[in-house]
Amino acid sequence: MKDSAHLKNNYRYFREFTTRWNDNDHYGHMNNSHYYAYFDSTIGQYLMNECNLSIKKDQVVGYVVHSQCNYVNSVAYPDELIVGLRVNKIGNSSVEYGLAIFKKGEEEASAHGTFTHVYVDRRVNQSTAIPEKVRSRLENLKV
Amino acid sequence: MKDSAHLKNNYRYFREFTTRWNDNDHYGHMNNSHYYAYFDSTIGQYLMNECNLSIKKDQVVGYVVHSQCNYVNSVAYPDELIVGLRVNKIGNSSVEYGLAIFKKGEEEASAHGTFTHVYVDRRVNQSTAIPEKVRSRLENLKV
Amino acid sequence: MKDSAHLKNNYRYFREFTTRWNDNDHYGHMNNSHYYAYFDSTIGQYLMNECNLSIKKDQVVGYVVHSQCNYVNSVAYPDELIVGLRVNKIGNSSVEYGLAIFKKGEEEASAHGTFTHVYVDRRVNQSTAIPEKVRSRLENLKV
Amino acid sequence: MKDSAHLKNNYRYFREFTTRWNDNDHYGHMNNSHYYAYFDSTIGQYLMNECNLSIKKDQVVGYVVHSQCNYVNSVAYPDELIVGLRVNKIGNSSVEYGLAIFKKGEEEASAHGTFTHVYVDRRVNQSTAIPEKVRSRLENLKV
Repeated sequence: MKDSAHLKNNYRYFREFTTRWNDNDHYGHMNNSHYYAYFDSTIGQYLMNECNLSIKKDQVVGYVVHSQCNYVNSVAYPDELIVGLRVNKIGNSSVEYGLAIFKKGEEEASAHGTFTHVYVDRRVNQSTAIPEKVRSRLENLKV
Repeated sequence: MKDSAHLKNNYRYFREFTTRWNDNDHYGHMNNSHYYAYFDSTIGQYLMNECNLSIKKDQVVGYVVHSQCNYVNSVAYPDELIVGLRVNKIGNSSVEYGLAIFKKGEEEASAHGTFTHVYVDRRVNQSTAIPEKVRSRLENLKV
Repeated sequence: MKDSAHLKNNYRYFREFTTRWNDNDHYGHMNNSHYYAYFDSTIGQYLMNECNLSIKKDQVVGYVVHSQCNYVNSVAYPDELIVGLRVNKIGNSSVEYGLAIFKKGEEEASAHGTFTHVYVDRRVNQSTAIPEKVRSRLENLKV
Repeated sequence: MKDSAHLKNNYRYFREFTTRWNDNDHYGHMNNSHYYAYFDSTIGQYLMNECNLSIKKDQVVGYVVHSQCNYVNSVAYPDELIVGLRVNKIGNSSVEYGLAIFKKGEEEASAHGTFTHVYVDRRVNQSTAIPEKVRSRLENLKV
């Protein structure tokens, strides 16, 4: 799987993002922390748009327990970016997403990484099984 | 001018922006500070795309000396937003921009405000006249 | 009031803040939008620490309806900053705060501005009177 | 090494940070991306304060090629945070830092992770040896 993490055709769901002036840090590149904001905004859109998860009402939600990113080539405002999403593995209560950031029009990623969510029941603050409405849709993102 | 600051047809340049999960604060709305990030990203795109200003190479650049925003209705991730830009007034070395944020498809602004830039020569850190390549294009944004 | 907005001895409550690498934008100064993050973090601390307001539980909370900032001198990571807070005016349901940002050790502000909150009952999403526990404490911040 | 990454006495350099209202996301915890802003602000302070690196003038600087974070317990504004830094390994042109975030007063980390920097000569945009003034000081952070 690792070898292919930089190629766009190894991702299953895509979102386009606009960069912002203050994404760039002193060196004139997008600061490393903002990549994660693109990653979890993409996951959030899949969960809300495709899995019918409500961040306002649902009591069972995914909390991030691990994230990581490999920075291959810099991006910078005002680049337009595409984020690709896939599922690397699903367990009973956790899922590891694979994500990559592409400059618009490019097939090789400027950065790629992973996000691991554990599903938590917010009422009792304990891990719980991934809700069925989510699990079935996550299977579609497996590569 | 003030009465019309909330109407889309009183703006001259538009950019579309994607919101991000971490734009929302604890109350579930976009945090007040992020509106300004949308404002100056829009101005930056006009200056780079339409006025041929280079943020990397040009020594004469606009620094913000004042900004303000009126928050009318909340917006939130994952809303898609349109930012409208116009010029309220131009002086010798300064310009006041008018800006407004619209939810995609809406004609009345969720927020509107102003940004005042003073042009500065970075080599001597002193205010200077607005470069001609910029001034002529700013005139086009007057309402 | 306006004349004195840049002087530290015209503020009543102070908080110290650490800057971050990604506060700086491409020009090597703190980006204009982050000033507002310091402003509302200071107000939030006063409301929580001194007025016993709970952002998690209270149903009556202050929403920002207007903010503005004058940028006098740039600050930058890794500066240490002091934010000063005062109350400019209080109405039935709204309050205008005055705020200023000082480099540690300086008496004249690098930036100063205002924040206007309107108190809203979140259950009905309507403006309401400032809660008594808050109002009495805000009076102490008047200059 | 891994077993000890959560313990404060396994770090060698510490910085205190103030949280901000907009660090918290919709769930009322600090958003996952901000942890990285604390991490690289801490590294930056070590490089500037202890290694005499100038982010404005030096042509040889460290670029992030990989970062990762394990989130153990949530933190939230207005918590005060301590970030611990150590060096896990040093190569010719790269260094892996270990970092951890502690709530003030706690000995076990709320989050811990790593940052890998590769030193780059900005004039030619190529990797280069870690400058001597930096290398000798990084050795002090080894555990």
